[in-house]
Amino acid sequence: MAPSRESIQATIESYVKSVAGGTVDDVLALYAPGATVEDPVGTDPRTTEAAIREFYGIIEPLEQTAELGVVKIAADHAAFNFTLVTHMGEQKVEISVIDVMTFDDDAKITSMKAIWGQEDMVAH
Amino acid sequence: MAPSRESIQATIESYVKSVAGGTVDDVLALYAPGATVEDPVGTDPRTTEAAIREFYGIIEPLEQTAELGVVKIAADHAAFNFTLVTHMGEQKVEISVIDVMTFDDDAKITSMKAIWGQEDMVAH
Repeated sequence: MAPSRESIQATIESYVKSVAGGTVDDVLALYAPGATVEDPVGTDPRTTEAAIREFYGIIEPLEQTAELGVVKIAADHAAFNFTLVTHMGEQKVEISVIDVMTFDDDAKITSMKAIWGQEDMVAH
Repeated sequence: MAPSRESIQATIESYVKSVAGGTVDDVLALYAPGATVEDPVGTDPRTTEAAIREFYGIIEPLEQTAELGVVKIAADHAAFNFTLVTHMGEQKVEISVIDVMTFDDDAKITSMKAIWGQEDMVAH
């Protein structure tokens, strides 16, 4: 049975919150075993838990805030826009992306593809 | 070689314009041979030109306007939010979706997946 829209929405909200202010374990808890991460699309997909852990480990120590934009859900797929702001003293780096995810029956993430380019990253 | 961001952006803008106010041929001209369309995700993909033609033929006669929202591009992928408004006399039906597309080297669409649910369709 496909996961409910509500459970997918809840996973997405937890994901955005955890990426910005949580730990790597918080983020990893939202992924299903065997999940893949391609961020940005065009780079080599990360296909092991160690590789995914490494990826989120890079941003864990950063001071970040995130805002969730448009969210669309269909069957076991979702796409959503979100903006992640990294605060470095007086400076801010803002990145706005669309993530495309698939989910298992428990609304755990089975794949994540992030669509963005250099143009979507702005320093203030 | 992957298509340029500019050429993908141009295809997306033509697509949204053609879906709203163009002919089926205008839309089909943006697709590569062998392209697939899954709209919404979870329904059977349309894998022949005839099936894709039939799909866009349904909305061709409608009076519609469209607005392109957030667009993100990475390698040969793009995702974008757009709102399509169908005008029926005094009534309007508004649908807001995120389309995920892949492109060939000439920035023709090789696949389209539309992510939306009943909740994303609103009548005014």
